[in-house]
Formats: sequence, structure tokens, C-alpha cells
Amino acid sequence: MWTLGEIAKHIDGVVHGEEQYEVSSIGTLQNSHKEQLSFLSNKKYKRYLTDTGAGAVIVSSDMASFVVNNAIVVDDPYVAYAKAASLLNPRKDEQAGIHSSASVAADSLIHPTASIGAQVVIGSGVNIAEYVVIGPGCVILDNVTVDESSRLVANITLCEAVKVGKRVIIHPGVVIGADGFGIANDKGKWINVPQIGSVQIGDDVDIGANTTIDRGAIEDTIISNGVKLDNQIQVGHNVIIGENTVIAGCVGIAGSTIIGKNCIIGGGAGLGGHLELVDGVMLTGMTMVTKSIKQAGSYSSGIPAEETHDWHKNVIRYRNMNKLVERVKQLEEFTKK
Amino acid sequence: MWTLGEIAKHIDGVVHGEEQYEVSSIGTLQNSHKEQLSFLSNKKYKRYLTDTGAGAVIVSSDMASFVVNNAIVVDDPYVAYAKAASLLNPRKDEQAGIHSSASVAADSLIHPTASIGAQVVIGSGVNIAEYVVIGPGCVILDNVTVDESSRLVANITLCEAVKVGKRVIIHPGVVIGADGFGIANDKGKWINVPQIGSVQIGDDVDIGANTTIDRGAIEDTIISNGVKLDNQIQVGHNVIIGENTVIAGCVGIAGSTIIGKNCIIGGGAGLGGHLELVDGVMLTGMTMVTKSIKQAGSYSSGIPAEETHDWHKNVIRYRNMNKLVERVKQLEEFTKK
Amino acid sequence: MWTLGEIAKHIDGVVHGEEQYEVSSIGTLQNSHKEQLSFLSNKKYKRYLTDTGAGAVIVSSDMASFVVNNAIVVDDPYVAYAKAASLLNPRKDEQAGIHSSASVAADSLIHPTASIGAQVVIGSGVNIAEYVVIGPGCVILDNVTVDESSRLVANITLCEAVKVGKRVIIHPGVVIGADGFGIANDKGKWINVPQIGSVQIGDDVDIGANTTIDRGAIEDTIISNGVKLDNQIQVGHNVIIGENTVIAGCVGIAGSTIIGKNCIIGGGAGLGGHLELVDGVMLTGMTMVTKSIKQAGSYSSGIPAEETHDWHKNVIRYRNMNKLVERVKQLEEFTKK
Repeated sequence: MWTLGEIAKHIDGVVHGEEQYEVSSIGTLQNSHKEQLSFLSNKKYKRYLTDTGAGAVIVSSDMASFVVNNAIVVDDPYVAYAKAASLLNPRKDEQAGIHSSASVAADSLIHPTASIGAQVVIGSGVNIAEYVVIGPGCVILDNVTVDESSRLVANITLCEAVKVGKRVIIHPGVVIGADGFGIANDKGKWINVPQIGSVQIGDDVDIGANTTIDRGAIEDTIISNGVKLDNQIQVGHNVIIGENTVIAGCVGIAGSTIIGKNCIIGGGAGLGGHLELVDGVMLTGMTMVTKSIKQAGSYSSGIPAEETHDWHKNVIRYRNMNKLVERVKQLEEFTKK
Repeated sequence: MWTLGEIAKHIDGVVHGEEQYEVSSIGTLQNSHKEQLSFLSNKKYKRYLTDTGAGAVIVSSDMASFVVNNAIVVDDPYVAYAKAASLLNPRKDEQAGIHSSASVAADSLIHPTASIGAQVVIGSGVNIAEYVVIGPGCVILDNVTVDESSRLVANITLCEAVKVGKRVIIHPGVVIGADGFGIANDKGKWINVPQIGSVQIGDDVDIGANTTIDRGAIEDTIISNGVKLDNQIQVGHNVIIGENTVIAGCVGIAGSTIIGKNCIIGGGAGLGGHLELVDGVMLTGMTMVTKSIKQAGSYSSGIPAEETHDWHKNVIRYRNMNKLVERVKQLEEFTKK
Repeated sequence: MWTLGEIAKHIDGVVHGEEQYEVSSIGTLQNSHKEQLSFLSNKKYKRYLTDTGAGAVIVSSDMASFVVNNAIVVDDPYVAYAKAASLLNPRKDEQAGIHSSASVAADSLIHPTASIGAQVVIGSGVNIAEYVVIGPGCVILDNVTVDESSRLVANITLCEAVKVGKRVIIHPGVVIGADGFGIANDKGKWINVPQIGSVQIGDDVDIGANTTIDRGAIEDTIISNGVKLDNQIQVGHNVIIGENTVIAGCVGIAGSTIIGKNCIIGGGAGLGGHLELVDGVMLTGMTMVTKSIKQAGSYSSGIPAEETHDWHKNVIRYRNMNKLVERVKQLEEFTKK
């Protein structure tokens, strides 16, 4: 149980109401009871404020007067909620040491504060720093380094010589450092181009479940500090992703493309290879990028769903646009007579 | 070997021909021998009926007269084939008990009829019910429950507190309950929003290889009874999928979207976040959904492939539609004179 | 260290300069030192030739005069670089034998030259041929065969009875032989169609990280010799992919589709089910294929990104094309008066 005063201090807020009021957990406005703390960040949900069962609500100052119970007033309720939720839900420490079922190469360096889970495999020359957690079922191949306080949840594969920074969180099923897709056509037969680069993951990076990041062909693939990657993203060899860029699920990035800092890439977007996106580019979901983007701003493509019946017709009209252009041309000719 | 009489009884059909005729396996019309049972569900393949080597064929009544050997006449040949194939290919029972190489927390509850495979990891507080199969290499984190007769094939990850219903089948590489993609921008730096909800998987759900289902931010992500998910689907946090909905491969569903019952979502479709699709919506493959769909029916988007040469031209015409509209306007002005 | 003479012999080239000059590794033109070998295949980068620190550069004959240090002149610099990189970066042999932590069924056949890694699971009736490497964490279910010199990197799942050819490379997270998505609607309830076929992978196939290839419904799914698959590809049941076809990341191929030989499929493309693509088809990235392609050539779809502001307008124009067509019709009527 935490008092509102303690929480307010942690999230840099001001209590309107009872500072000694205690809450134990976080809930939504719609489904909370009186020992829960809730929040309002999207004002569209303002109507739930009056009905909420929550004992206290985190709000911005303009919403404070609508709160019927206790309020904690902050600048940014969403950020404040994130911090309060972290306070109320501390991550359970994993036990330091190496699980008896793990298979760890004799010449690897595992810091005594690190936690190596069940059935883990750690190869030769690996370096695991302090407070790192390597969850059950992970395979860490030779010469990988994982820097302090990073956490690999479970069933993750880090291939040879991959470097992972500090406080990185990697979710299950992620594969980092598999060979990039490098092939050369030798008189009709495809041969593999050895992928001798590796992957560098910066600090404070998150990598979502089943995302794959390929190793570089010659130099390294680079994920910079503060990058947040969602699930099932494919990052090709020698891609470089700039600091604090955020990429939603199911995005594919072909080889050697460079993405700037502070970009926001919507889910399902596809980026061709050898492109360059400057800092501050935003792509809406499912956007198809075939050329470099040289100016910050928001870009989009794709035509949203319509009824299948209308879609069929519109596709035909699209296909026949040349005829339409031709007809307009003829009309223009006519008017010139 | 099964007699046609036995099979007909199982699939609710009537034998036309020899009830005592025996078959041992299922084959296609094109490649069967006389000890095989085949079926015709798509009438486009009717011409194969006369040539088939199959000893017997499952057909609808209007096709019965075209069968040259034995027939089993049923209402729905595809459903009947599915049932006959299950009868002729019974799943081998997995051995009950815990494999010696598995790592199982002392305080987990594993029913004695359950089968825990090699190299499995089972965390603290886990509850595995009767006849459950946890295949080799799976990682089951703390406080997960898997209800009776569910089967996890291999190399699957269930994260903390995930709940799996009865008779669920989960294919390799699936990750359930990884953190949802919740981030808040704290003065230019992204911080994580703790994902304190979990995932509930109903009864009779199938989940295809390498599909990922994220845990909820506060409340749970919910996959209802009878839902069938294909491979490489991404389900964001707090998504709710209604009963008996079917989703084909490579679909991405962003956070907090609600999909109704009995929907059919085609492969590669993308659904934005915070949307609502009513019951009975059908999406064709690769459809992009950016708004809620409030009426049952079939929806589509995307322009199918054309020759690259034509595509280039059509893209330019598309981009110049505003000019075309302008030209038509001017023509209209002209005619008004 | 290798002399240029030795390398030239291996890659079928001619040294311009010092045959005894020694290099130790491969570098890019932009970032090499004098003990490195570089290459120029894309003439766009010709300007780097004069500045490069590389001790030697692989080039085509028309570029030889621009090289300031040593050159190795070849017909195809990219193929020659691939071969030189293989020579300079020989793969470390894995130790033959079965790791003590692996769990191997007593009735499997493991060739004594094969390497079975840590925490591997090998089921009953499996046959692993000479020089095969099964990397750590792989799960090989019953009755699988892996032919000589194939290499499974780590954390891969091969389901029952899958057949893998010679010299195949499979990257982490791949799932081969999970059940195809076969369901039949039995009076409103989906039931599973048993997937009793398997998967055949030919020789010299590469399969990228987290790619999934489903087993066939009755007959087998087939990946022919020399096929190269990138990451996160989904191959549905009973798909047949012809020899030497190359498929980039994130492609989805629905069930029963047949792709010819020597095709090149761009990243993120989607192919519907039951289609047929002839030999020599090329698809650009994110192309949506809904019909069979009966003629070799390049095909495309999708509209590339534009500024979001313009996109909104163009989508509306697209939706209103019928009105535009109507207006043009009326103008045509007018001119006929």
C-alpha cells in the first residue's frame, strides 16, 4: 500500500484531497475499486471521471475539478501513470547465479550478480555484466557481450559477437545477429555472401517478441540508444536506426537503410533497402517507402478498407485511369475547336 | 484399416458401394491408391473423380453418381473429410510425466496425466491440468495456468500469469504475454509503461507458429473460445477477439482493438489501434483498416499486382489525380459558358 | 594472411599490382586499412576508389585503371567478393558429438561426424547425417531427417517427419512443419482438418530467422533445391517453391500456391492461395498477388509514401473516382450535342 503523498512525490504531482489515502494497485477508470489508482490522459474518457470507483485519479490541472474522489495533479498524466505503475509494480528480482540446468562455456565471464536461467546455453568468450538477467531457454552464441542490467526474458537467440548495451529489454523469440540476406548470382546459382559484420544494440533499447535483427555484411547493423522496437519487426543487415526512434509491430526494413533519430514508424510499414530517412520522420501504419525521405514530417500510403463491392469497382477504375485521362484530353481538344 | 461402414458411421454418411471395403489412409483424388479414401469438396475438381485410384471417395449427394468406385455420401464433404482424417490419423498419446531434463519449480502443480517434454522450463506457481502436453523446449513462466487437454507443441513461451483454456493447440515459436508496446514520452525520452495485465486464451483456440499475443497494459488481452489464429500474427495489448473468429497468417492488430465474433480476417491484413469491428466482418487479404467497422459484411483494400511498367504509370496518374480533377472542372466551366 | 595471388586464384581473377601483397580481412571501400581487401561492384561508389585505405580492391576490368593500390580484376566483383570473403572467413568447425545436456531418443540415428549442441532435443526415429550441425536449443521432433552438411544454427523447431536436404542453412527461430491452417466449419464451429502431409526442403536451401513453413494437409509442402528464403516469411501448407527462387523478408504465401523457378519475390509481398506463378516472375516489394501470373516478367503493386496531407486528399479522390468518371461522361454527352 502506498499513500497518495508518496506517489505524488514519485511522479512529481500535487495531491488534491487526502495525502494519507492509500492505494495498492493501478486500474482503469471504468473498472477500479477504492484501493486503486487510475488516470485520465485522453480527455475523450472524461465522462468516466464521475463514475469511477478508483480511490484516486492522476489528472492534468484542467481536469482536477471533475475528479470526485482524490486527485493527483501532474503535467503529463500518461507519463505520471507510467511512473506510478512502475512504483506500484516493482519487478521481482531474479536470483543471481547460474541455474543448474544451464550450459555455460568455461571461458565465458558471468558476473556474480547476473542471473542465468534454466536451460540457457552460453557459448565461448561471452561476457555477461552485472545484474543482467538471461531468462530460461535463451541461447547466447560465442563472443556475445551483454552490458549491465539488461534483461532477456526467455527463448531468445543472440548470435556470434552481438553486443547488447545497458538496460536493454529483449522479449521472447527475438533473434539478433542471424545472417543478413546476402546472396550473389554465380552463373545462375545463388551463393551466399558471408555476413562477417555483427549487431550493436545501444543502451535503453527495447526489442519486442519475435523481432529479428540481422548481422551486417561487412560492418555492423546498429540500433542506437533509446530505440523502442515492437514485435515481429524485421531489420535487415547494415540498417542503422537513430536514437529514440520508435517502431511499431510488423515493420520490415530492408538492408542498408538508415533511419534518423526521433522517428515514429507505424505498424506494418515497409522500407526498401539503401534508403535514408532523416530525423523526425513519421510514417503512418502500412506505409510503403521506396525512396529516401529528406525532410522531417509525416508520410503515408495505402488506401484504407472499403466494402468489397466498392473496392472491386475502384480497382477497375484505377486500372483504367489512363483511359479516363485520354477521354479528358479529347474533351479538351474539343473545347479548343 | 477401417471399413467404409465404420467411417460412414463416424462422419454421418451413407456408403454407396461395399460397406466392408477397407481403407488405411487419406489421399488426394489425383494421387491415391485403392487402400485410400479421398474426397471431393470443390466441384472444380470433379473431373478427377473418374480417374482417381482411391478405393472410396467422400462426396455430396449430387456427385455420388460420378464416383466410379465406392462413395460415402455426406452433407458437407470437407467437414466429413476432416472428421475421417482425424479418425484415420489418431494423434499418438504423449507419455504422461515429467521428462528428466525438464526444469520444474517445486511449487508448480503438474497433473500426473500431463506430459512435460525434454528441456522444458516451468516456473513458480504454474498450474498444468490433466492431459496437457507441454512439448520440448517450452518455457512456462511463473503463475501460468494451462487447462485440460491443451497441447503446446514445442519451443513456446508463455509469460507470467498467462491463462490458457481447454483443448487449446499452440504451435512452435508462439509467444504469449510478452509486454505490450506501451511507452510514454517523458520530455524527449521514451519510458516504459509497465504492462501489468495478462492474456486470457479461451477454450478450443488454435495459435499458429511464431504468432505473438501481448499482455495487457492494465486489464487483459482476450482471445475468446473457438478462435483460430494462423502463423505470424501479431496481437497487440488489450485486443479482444470474439468467439469463433478466424484470422489468417501475417495479420497485425494494434493495441486495444476489439474484433467481434465469427469474423474472418484474410492474411496480411493490418488493423489500427482502438478500433472496433462488429460481429461477422470479413476482410480480404492485405486489407488496411484504419476506422471501426460498424456493419457486418466484406471489406477490402489494396490494389492487386500489375506489370511493373503499368504500375509506374498508374502510380503517377494516381499522384496527379488532383490535376485531372482540375482539368475536368475547367471543362465543366467551359460547358457552362 | 593471404596473398593476393592466392585470393586471385580462388576467385578466378588477375592481380594488377603485387601478387605477394598480403591481406587478412575484408573491408568496405570507405573503412578499410592496408591489410584489408575491398571490392567495387556498384559503380555508384567509384569515387571511393581513390580514397580507400584498402590494400587491394576487387574490380571489373573497366574499373582497374582507377584503383590506386593493388587490384584483382574479375568478371563479377560481387560474386568474387563473396568467394573471397568465404576464403578469408572460414567457418569454425563445430565439434562432432552429442553435447551432454542434449536429450536424444535412443532410436535416433546420429552420424558420429554430426554435432548436436547443448539443450537440443531429438525425438524418436530421427536421422541426422554426416557433418550436420544441430545448434543449441533446437527441437527435432520424431522421424525428421536432416541430410549431410546441413546446419541448424539455434532454437529451431523441425516438426514430425520433416525432411531437410544437403547443405541447408536454417537460422534461429525457424519453425518447419507446424500444422497448416486447415479448418472446416461444422455448423458454425470450426474444426481442425488434420495436417497429415509434411515438408520437404531440398538441397542448398537457406531459411532466414523466424520464417515458418507449414506441413501439407495431405501431400507435402515443397521447397526446391537452391531456394533462398529471408527472415519472417510465412509459407502456407502445400505451397511449392521452384528451384533457385529467392524470397525477401516478411513475405506471406497462402496455401497451395505454386511458385516457379528462378523467381525473385520482394520483401513484404503477399500471395493469395491456390495461385500459380510461372518461372522467372519478379515481384517488387509489398506487391499483392491475387491472381495467377502466367507470364515471366516484373509485377508490382502498392502506392509509395507521400506526405500525409497529400495522402488524405488522394485517398478521397480515389474514393470519388466514380464521380469523376460520371462527370467526364456528362461532358462527353455535352460535346455530342
